[in-house]
Amino acid sequence: MTGRDGGAVLTPIAGSPVVILVRPQLADNIGSVARCMANGGLFHLRLVSPRDGWPQDRAWRTASGADAILEAVTVFDSVGAAVADLHRVYATCPRPRHIIKPVLTARAGAADIREAASRDLSCGILFGPERTGLDSDDMAAADTWIRYPLNPEFDSLNLAQAVMVMAYEWWTAAEPTPGRRMQMHKTEVATKGELDGLLDHLIDQLDACGFLRNAPKRPGMVRNLRHLFERGEITEQEVRTLRGVVTGLALGRRRLGRLEDLEPTLEE
Amino acid sequence: MTGRDGGAVLTPIAGSPVVILVRPQLADNIGSVARCMANGGLFHLRLVSPRDGWPQDRAWRTASGADAILEAVTVFDSVGAAVADLHRVYATCPRPRHIIKPVLTARAGAADIREAASRDLSCGILFGPERTGLDSDDMAAADTWIRYPLNPEFDSLNLAQAVMVMAYEWWTAAEPTPGRRMQMHKTEVATKGELDGLLDHLIDQLDACGFLRNAPKRPGMVRNLRHLFERGEITEQEVRTLRGVVTGLALGRRRLGRLEDLEPTLEE
Repeated sequence: MTGRDGGAVLTPIAGSPVVILVRPQLADNIGSVARCMANGGLFHLRLVSPRDGWPQDRAWRTASGADAILEAVTVFDSVGAAVADLHRVYATCPRPRHIIKPVLTARAGAADIREAASRDLSCGILFGPERTGLDSDDMAAADTWIRYPLNPEFDSLNLAQAVMVMAYEWWTAAEPTPGRRMQMHKTEVATKGELDGLLDHLIDQLDACGFLRNAPKRPGMVRNLRHLFERGEITEQEVRTLRGVVTGLALGRRRLGRLEDLEPTLEE
Repeated sequence: MTGRDGGAVLTPIAGSPVVILVRPQLADNIGSVARCMANGGLFHLRLVSPRDGWPQDRAWRTASGADAILEAVTVFDSVGAAVADLHRVYATCPRPRHIIKPVLTARAGAADIREAASRDLSCGILFGPERTGLDSDDMAAADTWIRYPLNPEFDSLNLAQAVMVMAYEWWTAAEPTPGRRMQMHKTEVATKGELDGLLDHLIDQLDACGFLRNAPKRPGMVRNLRHLFERGEITEQEVRTLRGVVTGLALGRRRLGRLEDLEPTLEE
């Protein structure tokens, strides 16, 4: 979907947290952040003292159409002002600090924000400047810290990546899609009857060509073939294709001669 | 940790999947991908027909020290060649296709890769070119597709962001950090006895100043104060600070006069 200026039509989702970039340095990063926010369904973006001022054309170039988020940006001159209307403030925290404070993973943080929003509490998440991260005063403005589980040997995250992880977790926290599903589109899974028809056809032809001539091995070989075809969901179309394959091979066989070489591939 | 060229010391983690960028266009993105991989503990990066050839200096500039990953990159001229030694291939799939195939979320995909690795199966994940994504032939090289749950109104992911989400999920799938914990560093949680000492001190002073003079209300007010101080884990240092605060206020009170105005703030 695109808006009148080519940007995507994006609207705030109720309960979505505010992303607050504290002293961001590069406008490119602000644009990338907007794109990540759109990916995860976030909308509200606040900037505290952006180094190069605001607005900056470069942000629109990296936002890839998340223009609506950039158009709605508000700018503040302190963290205190940026969080004054919020009930709960989270700070993304790359390093441990000498203070006691609840620290959540990104996933638990996302669940926490969802829970707070269900009680009509508005939430914001602070992200620090590119090189240095949030300073001690910024961290003190937050009631909860969020620390991503990541490789401790290499835990310096690009600003947009940091926002991406939170936006992704926020979206995922309410995503009903099951972890595993079958892609179904213009196709139908074959019934067991259709599959049996295929197997009967195949076994008839294998009997005819002598492939199953070893009587003691035959039941196991037939069972293995069945297991193979039951392993995935086969579609109606695929059953039709496979029946054609069997027929084609059976007709071609007359030219092929001996089949013993194929046999071991079907044994356990 | 830094290596001899200023890059981080990164080593492959057993069972980590191979990231395969199919026809990547921008070297900057290849470098950003390496950084994201390092964040999530991934190491093996393969390129299929990178548009501008390989190596490219620009990649090292955006890798932010994940040089070891770039140094170890291998280049292939087809997807088939790039996956030939792998047991299982996942394709990140932005759009539904007209085919039947298991589709996993990023989280379920990460769990699937961990499970496969536990059986010594080597896994790879295909990511498509920046503008177009994987084509139908690329998708057919995969046995499983991965589709992130993201905002359907804005689901076009930057290449590095797409890798970030998978790297993050792969790392998180084996991360033992509890979702919520208290940051503890050079500080100790106060015992209940220390907390009681503080409360006794406070209540003594509140009795002395007349704040708790309303006898029927006194038990409830004392209880509310206790609830307030029990809400978070208070440290030994904070108990000492608060006792100083109470003493300071009690001494200053003689100059303050009437206290009735404060009283409602402690009622329920």
